[in-house]
Amino acid sequence: MGTEDGIQLLPAINDDHGGVIVKLTETMDSDVFRGALRASMSQWKNEGKRGVWIKLPIGLAHLVEIAVKEGFWYHHAEPNYLMLVYWIPESICTIPANATHRVGVGAIVLTENRELLVVQEKSGKLRGTGIWKIPTGVVDEGEDICVAAVREVKEETGIDAEFLEVVAFRQTHKAFFEKSDLFFLCFLHPLSFNIQKQELEIEAAQWMPIEEFAAQPFNLNSNVARHITDLCFAKLDKNYVGFTPVSLPSSDDRPSYLYMNARDLCSSTPTTIN
Amino acid sequence: MGTEDGIQLLPAINDDHGGVIVKLTETMDSDVFRGALRASMSQWKNEGKRGVWIKLPIGLAHLVEIAVKEGFWYHHAEPNYLMLVYWIPESICTIPANATHRVGVGAIVLTENRELLVVQEKSGKLRGTGIWKIPTGVVDEGEDICVAAVREVKEETGIDAEFLEVVAFRQTHKAFFEKSDLFFLCFLHPLSFNIQKQELEIEAAQWMPIEEFAAQPFNLNSNVARHITDLCFAKLDKNYVGFTPVSLPSSDDRPSYLYMNARDLCSSTPTTIN
Repeated sequence: MGTEDGIQLLPAINDDHGGVIVKLTETMDSDVFRGALRASMSQWKNEGKRGVWIKLPIGLAHLVEIAVKEGFWYHHAEPNYLMLVYWIPESICTIPANATHRVGVGAIVLTENRELLVVQEKSGKLRGTGIWKIPTGVVDEGEDICVAAVREVKEETGIDAEFLEVVAFRQTHKAFFEKSDLFFLCFLHPLSFNIQKQELEIEAAQWMPIEEFAAQPFNLNSNVARHITDLCFAKLDKNYVGFTPVSLPSSDDRPSYLYMNARDLCSSTPTTIN
Repeated sequence: MGTEDGIQLLPAINDDHGGVIVKLTETMDSDVFRGALRASMSQWKNEGKRGVWIKLPIGLAHLVEIAVKEGFWYHHAEPNYLMLVYWIPESICTIPANATHRVGVGAIVLTENRELLVVQEKSGKLRGTGIWKIPTGVVDEGEDICVAAVREVKEETGIDAEFLEVVAFRQTHKAFFEKSDLFFLCFLHPLSFNIQKQELEIEAAQWMPIEEFAAQPFNLNSNVARHITDLCFAKLDKNYVGFTPVSLPSSDDRPSYLYMNARDLCSSTPTTIN
């Protein structure tokens, strides 16, 4: 690519919002990059472009300073790249905000004999305390909550389980640096019972009578753990209902999920809220 | 700070996980930074430190390349800084994952006269279509979902409202770049009725009979909008219950919230799940 006066332009594709995305993959000399960036910016301004994104692989870290000096700022980063952005128009910047939340799941796997699947972890703040907890984990990038809960149970304990519903969720702030955390408590139905614990992270795993789990001193003191116990009993002994996933059609053949109280939605006994 | 042979060390504080955090605030020459980083790394290795974090303000972008050449990689970035990280031990890296989700809210504000608070936006993909939608917005960094819903309604329409519950949530992937999106549909009780629309983002705002909202062709075709309509009718005419926030004590005097089906949890009519 080049202009009439021979200066190289940066390879760019248009985005859906009137802007352009530059994805550099091959190494580039600093001076060449500076010249190409200036020429490209000039062209994009003439073309009325809005947001300009530059995705720099970590191997091109020497170009970060140059983009910043040309007025770009950071948008987000992953281990192997940094995304920089610039807003050309004088109108209000509509660059979308960065991701703000990490998402975790906790899996409540209860048998019909009132036994709860519990583990002791090899690391973390409960390490070495002898406290039994439910399997928990972080939702991977691009992973559905209902998939993550099943995966964590399988990974930590070898148990196959079917996802039923989200029974509660917690939002906390400043979980790490300035980021927040959303933790989804999920209810699962066990499909197998022979525990094969993971060696790396799990010290021990077992099926524990729910009353015994509830009686752990930790659960009596810890607010969240006590709520988990309450939810187990509400699920076993009352008619507690959470949010079940309903698949929504999506453009890329992969459904996304809307989680809601399907029982009440389908209820055939109308009442009024007043 | 310095070592015995006079080489400057980087200013660092210990974190809670056996690692150190370097926060540079003043400008530093590239060569001085390289020397100080190498001397500091050597000392931290001797001390058995684990994760090393370097927070570089965007004004120090010239130091990014040096940290990367010393083996650091990117963890996350915000507009004005880049966080780099390095894992010293030979054991498995337990550096926490980056934030993966953006969080949004949609506010269902229904009057007892079966009127829904709706807006037309000046931008976005519904711009100029004449379609009425519920107020929506992105949850700010550190903001509670229940606070964000009230704020968005106030900002867009001037209406004061009380947060009641989350009635559903949707998880979608690749909402922007590789990041995912969690969208919480919230039910609010209006405390005022005189609409004062925001000029910047909102083309029009009004109270609309829910049957009229439901009859918009867009709602008949759009899966999510149709679910919103279903939820409105379930709330008005049935006994639909969502998740209400229960405050949890936290260490910094600011409560976090656990959202759950409080009605079923407090139910006094036990049943069994079988």
